[in-house]
Amino acid sequence: MAEHKIIKAGLLGFGTVGAGVYKLAKRQKEEMESKTGARFEITRILVRDRNKERKGVDPALLTDQWEEIIMDDEIELIIEVMGGIEPARTRILEALHAGKNVVTANKDLIAEHGRELLDAAEEHGVDFLFEAAVAGGIPIIRPMKQCLAANEITEVVGIMNGTTNYILTKMFEDGMDFEEALAKATEYGYAEADPTADVEGLDAGRKAAILSSIAFHSRVTFQDVYTEGITKISSRDISYAKEFGSVIKLLSVAHNTEGGIEVAVYPMLIDQNHPLASVRDSFNAVFVHGDAVDDVMFYGRGAGEFPTASAVMGDVIDVIRDIQYHCTGRISCTCYRTTKIKDFRDIKNKFFLRMQVDNKPGVLAAIASVFGVHKVSISKVIQKRITDGVAELVIVTEPVKEYHMEDALMHLRDMETTREISSVIREY
Amino acid sequence: MAEHKIIKAGLLGFGTVGAGVYKLAKRQKEEMESKTGARFEITRILVRDRNKERKGVDPALLTDQWEEIIMDDEIELIIEVMGGIEPARTRILEALHAGKNVVTANKDLIAEHGRELLDAAEEHGVDFLFEAAVAGGIPIIRPMKQCLAANEITEVVGIMNGTTNYILTKMFEDGMDFEEALAKATEYGYAEADPTADVEGLDAGRKAAILSSIAFHSRVTFQDVYTEGITKISSRDISYAKEFGSVIKLLSVAHNTEGGIEVAVYPMLIDQNHPLASVRDSFNAVFVHGDAVDDVMFYGRGAGEFPTASAVMGDVIDVIRDIQYHCTGRISCTCYRTTKIKDFRDIKNKFFLRMQVDNKPGVLAAIASVFGVHKVSISKVIQKRITDGVAELVIVTEPVKEYHMEDALMHLRDMETTREISSVIREY
Repeated sequence: MAEHKIIKAGLLGFGTVGAGVYKLAKRQKEEMESKTGARFEITRILVRDRNKERKGVDPALLTDQWEEIIMDDEIELIIEVMGGIEPARTRILEALHAGKNVVTANKDLIAEHGRELLDAAEEHGVDFLFEAAVAGGIPIIRPMKQCLAANEITEVVGIMNGTTNYILTKMFEDGMDFEEALAKATEYGYAEADPTADVEGLDAGRKAAILSSIAFHSRVTFQDVYTEGITKISSRDISYAKEFGSVIKLLSVAHNTEGGIEVAVYPMLIDQNHPLASVRDSFNAVFVHGDAVDDVMFYGRGAGEFPTASAVMGDVIDVIRDIQYHCTGRISCTCYRTTKIKDFRDIKNKFFLRMQVDNKPGVLAAIASVFGVHKVSISKVIQKRITDGVAELVIVTEPVKEYHMEDALMHLRDMETTREISSVIREY
Repeated sequence: MAEHKIIKAGLLGFGTVGAGVYKLAKRQKEEMESKTGARFEITRILVRDRNKERKGVDPALLTDQWEEIIMDDEIELIIEVMGGIEPARTRILEALHAGKNVVTANKDLIAEHGRELLDAAEEHGVDFLFEAAVAGGIPIIRPMKQCLAANEITEVVGIMNGTTNYILTKMFEDGMDFEEALAKATEYGYAEADPTADVEGLDAGRKAAILSSIAFHSRVTFQDVYTEGITKISSRDISYAKEFGSVIKLLSVAHNTEGGIEVAVYPMLIDQNHPLASVRDSFNAVFVHGDAVDDVMFYGRGAGEFPTASAVMGDVIDVIRDIQYHCTGRISCTCYRTTKIKDFRDIKNKFFLRMQVDNKPGVLAAIASVFGVHKVSISKVIQKRITDGVAELVIVTEPVKEYHMEDALMHLRDMETTREISSVIREY
């Protein structure tokens, strides 16, 4: 049976997520005791500026001295919500080496240094949990490590960035162009002042690295992930997508194939009947295929103060249970394989290509022959005359290796009859 | 650190799910050892007929003697996939009292006797896990008990029966009527020879009872769940649903309100933009609202040999980890509250009502006045003339208590101008 005791934690960082965690821990105080048989207290909060006013927080908890937390033997759990690589990495390592359990929401850190941290946790038999680091409030890491543990997972496809999904939804449903939708996202607080990490797919790429590692039991880091953003998607592409019965989504796509792990982030056309197609606004979703379970999908809020705090506190409750039952470290790193990452240029994709060409006889034949030379099979061509001189051509290919498509595109750009290659978008 | 050892299990039942569990355990043998540090072996299989030929199974494993399993001290885990209340209940209780861990897929049993079994598990400090009992392969129990543990969950709405969802999808997308769609479901093996438990909502009701208990931390049994099936849904209702931008789904709806727990299963109109609306064919999904996480949804296969075996084996892997770390019983019953179940007649719902009435002046006014008397507010009325004598009336109400609607309907049926009340369907 579990002992009744008090579990004390140190909270590192008091930004949006930190404040959410603090408030939620307060709100759930009694419930948590019913659930775990232990009382939970945040006894120390590490902040940069101890004198800044913070509503609803006892100022005595605040400290700007890491030593006061790491040296406090009563603190059994560190909750890291500062974000960024350093000093988060060093502090987490120090905490793990001091035998403290750690819960973090830090995707940047896990995507680059996950192995190092998980190894340290395993060495010291403590919990290192990071459910909040992928897809915010959506339960995904625990379901993959536990519920789906009897599956050989072959595919993980996700909409893992809320900002870009909001932008693409506005473009698709309300006919906005990219700039207008981005402005709306900024107005509503979905996009940051510098939206690069979101719109260029970097944020989604970090999550893809973490999820691929867990799904395929082999380490994938952010550096392994090819990323492409949504800034070049135009209203005209969206119209064609509709015409084809598809929507355009920024997808994180990971496959475990015989030739290695394929992992990339890019905008893709996806059939309107696919469960991911109906994920709207700033919601996230992760679609997983396993050999036993078939298709499963997890849907919810990928960011925000309380959704993220929900995931952090779910981890905290698990740590408390593990401390009570003397089984911390029960589920550690599950990367027991070493699978190579496939070169991005060897991945096969279908492509949607929109280009402006001279509107004269023989042009289509010449283009088709370029594709033929580069081993690209065409599945659909739509030609729309825009003016007397210029025609818009939309070409959809069969699955083709990235490098063949790249070569074909280079060749097409060089043709005299090509006015512009307007869009190159992959198809799921 | 975990010890390397062999964990032995007894499998009760070798039907579709039992065979799936056996095959999956074989397929995952080495992977499981990498994941848990222990070898897993099914050393005994309890069957009714020991002499029936079973492909791919060593006949020496088969037994028709329960004693050979319960008395075997080397067996630390019982996997029950026989189904039904007895003898499953007695055997599980005997196993728990003997200090053996239990994994089961038996929803009928949990929905009626869950508390008794969880209490026995807690008393003996063993694991009693049943992820497969709700929504088949979809991870839902562990996410609710762990990942979402810091939430006050107020709503759980699910499509928890694949047979009826398949039938309703065929009716909606292909214009089939109920009988035709049911025949198709039977042909494809989605519906059983006697489809009552599916089409009358009983199967979904059992799952609703289990999930409500977990979500609201208070015991809900199958007897507490009002159930209504889909046999009366007609193509004409489907057409109106489309006209209103909705679909019709068999929903398990549970709310934790100030007046108590509301839990019921019935067909409902639901907006096409709601994530549950796009759950097609035989797929299941569970939509959960928590105060911190906001909306989350879990989607996947609710039945089938391997999806169900995936959930069973996920539980098995967790039991193995718990045995290795000496922490079985770590997460037991979470029903630490006693919340009353609200009388079904006090639940408020919006209604869609389709009726045939005499097509003459004053009829609509008379009907509207009946609704007024019974405190039913009307939000929409559509009148379509079918013949000179009879008009079809579609009325959508504001949210109204079930018993007020019941009284109004009784009154309406008695009116001389009423030819038929064709449909009464709730709206989500």
